Amino acid sequence: MEPCTFILFGATGDLAKRKIYPALYNLFVRGMLPRNFSVVGLGRREWTADVYQAAVERSLYQFSRRKPDDAEQLNRFLQFFAYRVLDIGREEDYRSLLALVEARERTLALPQNRLYYLSVGPEYFETIADRIRSSGLGAADGWKRLVIEKPFGRDLHSARALNRRLAESFAEEEIFRIDHYLGKPVVQRLESLQQANPIIQALWTNRYIANVQITASETVGVEERAGYYDHVGALRDMFQNHLLQLLMMTAIRLPYDSSSEKVRFQKKQVMEALEPVHQENVGVHLVRAQYAEGSVGGQPVVGYASEPGIPPASANETFVAARLRIDNGDWRGIPFYIRTGKRMKKKSTRIVVEFREPLKQARPEDEYGALPNLLVIEIGPEESISLRLNTKEPGTPETFKPIRIDLHLTPPTSPEAYENLIGDALRGDAAFFAHWDEVELSWQWVQPVLDAFANDRVPLRSYAAGTYGPAESDALLAEDGYRWWFDDDEPPSSQSESTEGDHYARHAHP
Amino acid sequence: MEPCTFILFGATGDLAKRKIYPALYNLFVRGMLPRNFSVVGLGRREWTADVYQAAVERSLYQFSRRKPDDAEQLNRFLQFFAYRVLDIGREEDYRSLLALVEARERTLALPQNRLYYLSVGPEYFETIADRIRSSGLGAADGWKRLVIEKPFGRDLHSARALNRRLAESFAEEEIFRIDHYLGKPVVQRLESLQQANPIIQALWTNRYIANVQITASETVGVEERAGYYDHVGALRDMFQNHLLQLLMMTAIRLPYDSSSEKVRFQKKQVMEALEPVHQENVGVHLVRAQYAEGSVGGQPVVGYASEPGIPPASANETFVAARLRIDNGDWRGIPFYIRTGKRMKKKSTRIVVEFREPLKQARPEDEYGALPNLLVIEIGPEESISLRLNTKEPGTPETFKPIRIDLHLTPPTSPEAYENLIGDALRGDAAFFAHWDEVELSWQWVQPVLDAFANDRVPLRSYAAGTYGPAESDALLAEDGYRWWFDDDEPPSSQSESTEGDHYARHAHP
Repeated sequence: MEPCTFILFGATGDLAKRKIYPALYNLFVRGMLPRNFSVVGLGRREWTADVYQAAVERSLYQFSRRKPDDAEQLNRFLQFFAYRVLDIGREEDYRSLLALVEARERTLALPQNRLYYLSVGPEYFETIADRIRSSGLGAADGWKRLVIEKPFGRDLHSARALNRRLAESFAEEEIFRIDHYLGKPVVQRLESLQQANPIIQALWTNRYIANVQITASETVGVEERAGYYDHVGALRDMFQNHLLQLLMMTAIRLPYDSSSEKVRFQKKQVMEALEPVHQENVGVHLVRAQYAEGSVGGQPVVGYASEPGIPPASANETFVAARLRIDNGDWRGIPFYIRTGKRMKKKSTRIVVEFREPLKQARPEDEYGALPNLLVIEIGPEESISLRLNTKEPGTPETFKPIRIDLHLTPPTSPEAYENLIGDALRGDAAFFAHWDEVELSWQWVQPVLDAFANDRVPLRSYAAGTYGPAESDALLAEDGYRWWFDDDEPPSSQSESTEGDHYARHAHP
Repeated sequence: MEPCTFILFGATGDLAKRKIYPALYNLFVRGMLPRNFSVVGLGRREWTADVYQAAVERSLYQFSRRKPDDAEQLNRFLQFFAYRVLDIGREEDYRSLLALVEARERTLALPQNRLYYLSVGPEYFETIADRIRSSGLGAADGWKRLVIEKPFGRDLHSARALNRRLAESFAEEEIFRIDHYLGKPVVQRLESLQQANPIIQALWTNRYIANVQITASETVGVEERAGYYDHVGALRDMFQNHLLQLLMMTAIRLPYDSSSEKVRFQKKQVMEALEPVHQENVGVHLVRAQYAEGSVGGQPVVGYASEPGIPPASANETFVAARLRIDNGDWRGIPFYIRTGKRMKKKSTRIVVEFREPLKQARPEDEYGALPNLLVIEIGPEESISLRLNTKEPGTPETFKPIRIDLHLTPPTSPEAYENLIGDALRGDAAFFAHWDEVELSWQWVQPVLDAFANDRVPLRSYAAGTYGPAESDALLAEDGYRWWFDDDEPPSSQSESTEGDHYARHAHP
């Protein structure tokens, strides 16, 4: 790991406190920071280095998975941190920043490796990138990297414009676009699970898989983000980035020694093979909906249009369900169902891989009690990977019952997404970041949907808050003979076999 | 379940006490005995019904997995049991038995369904079967069944002769040959695991499997059975019956509604496809060995030839390892390795299915740490099914480590083999019994080996007591690029992931 300077825009912000400082601290404790390391925090507030270090320290006690318990170690960590007031638009602030960075590089014997972390609103991305170039900060002797958060544009056009602008200051391989879903240990394990296991590899194809279901359901409504959310919607907020990334991670086939380049290449191939939708037929494969009043966790809640800050006539979608198809040899014929929404019944992000029933005709499940084999990847709030198989009790020859096998992949001390991602960025490994190809192709797929929404070519359905979305979402799967798993029945969560069978309530396919 | 009479030859013997009475009792408690039921125990001892019932009761407290805890229930159970003295050779004893059975059938309103359980030495099988016919016992109005224990012959010729003799009194479908390995819950689960799970079915072929290893190792020596064992050896005692049955259970492909007929048919097909060995080349595929002195569990033990009751010049084998091939579409090219022996390092019966490494050339395991995927079926002393996959820690991208997934199939209260098998025999379900076809084909495969041993065409190797057999056994696999799993490393036994990786020590293929 090469010594470097970590230049953090938005150092006094919420994300820095909750995620970035704890991530850096845990990397430090794990010996995964360079020994020579410098952090320069930037913000509008007039802080001294002491005030800044105290804020960093507080954030650790509050948000770190490891609480500091060694004063000497903590002190060494805090010594990394310097602070500088910066007005994002002011050219001279960048020149003074350059002077500070260079001074610290000299003092700490650091090469001119500089990582710029933009923990600020997307409206500042272009300005900051420009200024890094124009101030000379970017013209260093070592490497430079730009880490940015979502959103990356709000449609295909704006994403391309943003990318062109960033490209004036940073090469594509210098840009690390964070999609924190890609940092989650279970998502990273999913990739290796397939990659390193011939038997999973063997099964990972349309020959054995019937469909893939990706769900990201939230119970919250718009909260304080009403104004923002009403201009964004579920499609932009979740679908275009996180959920399409999960689709890619499920569909790629990686070689054993998968470099960042190979991951990028495979993801691009998946996105290129994604069958496009056209504005005219978006409604055939996609359901758009908004929550009406209902109740969540026993509490009555208002409908979206009655939320404070939302115009009563808003046609913004809070729910999207879609059927996608990947037209390549591995996945031809297999529907990928994706849905996300607010004010749903439970908070959960999961991928369910449903395997085929080759003998379906010969054995109606009602007769024998067997259910499809499922691989269930729980991404949140808990992380787990489990497999559902059927077994039968000896001595009762004709009755099968489903059992769950838990892969126990994630120990409770597992690193958080940001810890993985910041560690990767410091090492220069872009495998788990969103590359431009993917971002562009995602927007390309989504654009006709945005257009169809804008032109009101897709009916806006309604669903009661506290449900799993509108009936049309269930109908989307029922058309193909499938159902969403784990809506009414419990998702896999515990280990004991004796009660496990009951976790999988039996449902006949519609 | 039809009411019937259970006629038990050898009612005062050890097997009856240890296995049969506990099995009947547990079936009774589970509601799996007919409501109208009669047991007639037969032995040489002059016992009254009271003495017999007291012996049965004692056996339950001593050996049953459920101890009697309800006096009224226990009493109802014991009322089933009558006793009659019988000299196996005496015709008139059978006529008096017939009178007793008929009297009880009348009293208890039982149809003339009669199950004969021969818990006696094989030298009595023919006589008893003859007498059942000649006494008129077999000419009843209901069904009749004959349950016999191993050994079924001591070579192909004697097995055929025995079968011809039994066939004079019982039809093949009336004969239930117990192989208690087939009664073990985990073996019965194995069958359903494949049958009811498309993903296991998909993997269950030479396309994905590299080899199958079946081990039955004992730590004991010949104990009190010296005289018997020295005339039998490992090949007859374990290999011809139990281990070839496990091979069949692993290799068959069952339809969903697998009747006894379908299981029989499939097992026959596997045995017919087994590539025969010839006397001249037995030594190429099979290792014959006898234990020398050594130490087991820290205790020094003598060699086989020094055991009391064994002739010092005995060439009897206490260990056999063999490579078998099944020449059909599913298994062509896949070696099945089978070994069994006494005085080995650990007591264990297990099947290991090693999956192929499609990318072997591209990733030497030393570099990445990944090991082959394994499905491990532990049959004894503990029962379990587990799967070994590889995973990697997020943040350490290039290092894989093996993890174990336990299928938790067998709850601790699971029925014992005899309980399953006696229940099956009472229901007339022969799926988990050894059918004549299999027995004959097993002897047919084994006969050239017996001949080669008799003609000393296979060198008798030596192994130190307390090891996993002679070096030649390891060499047998090494020739094909494989190794016996779990000899030096620990077999899977616990669940926690954190320590699991270490359970699979890394071994380069020789």
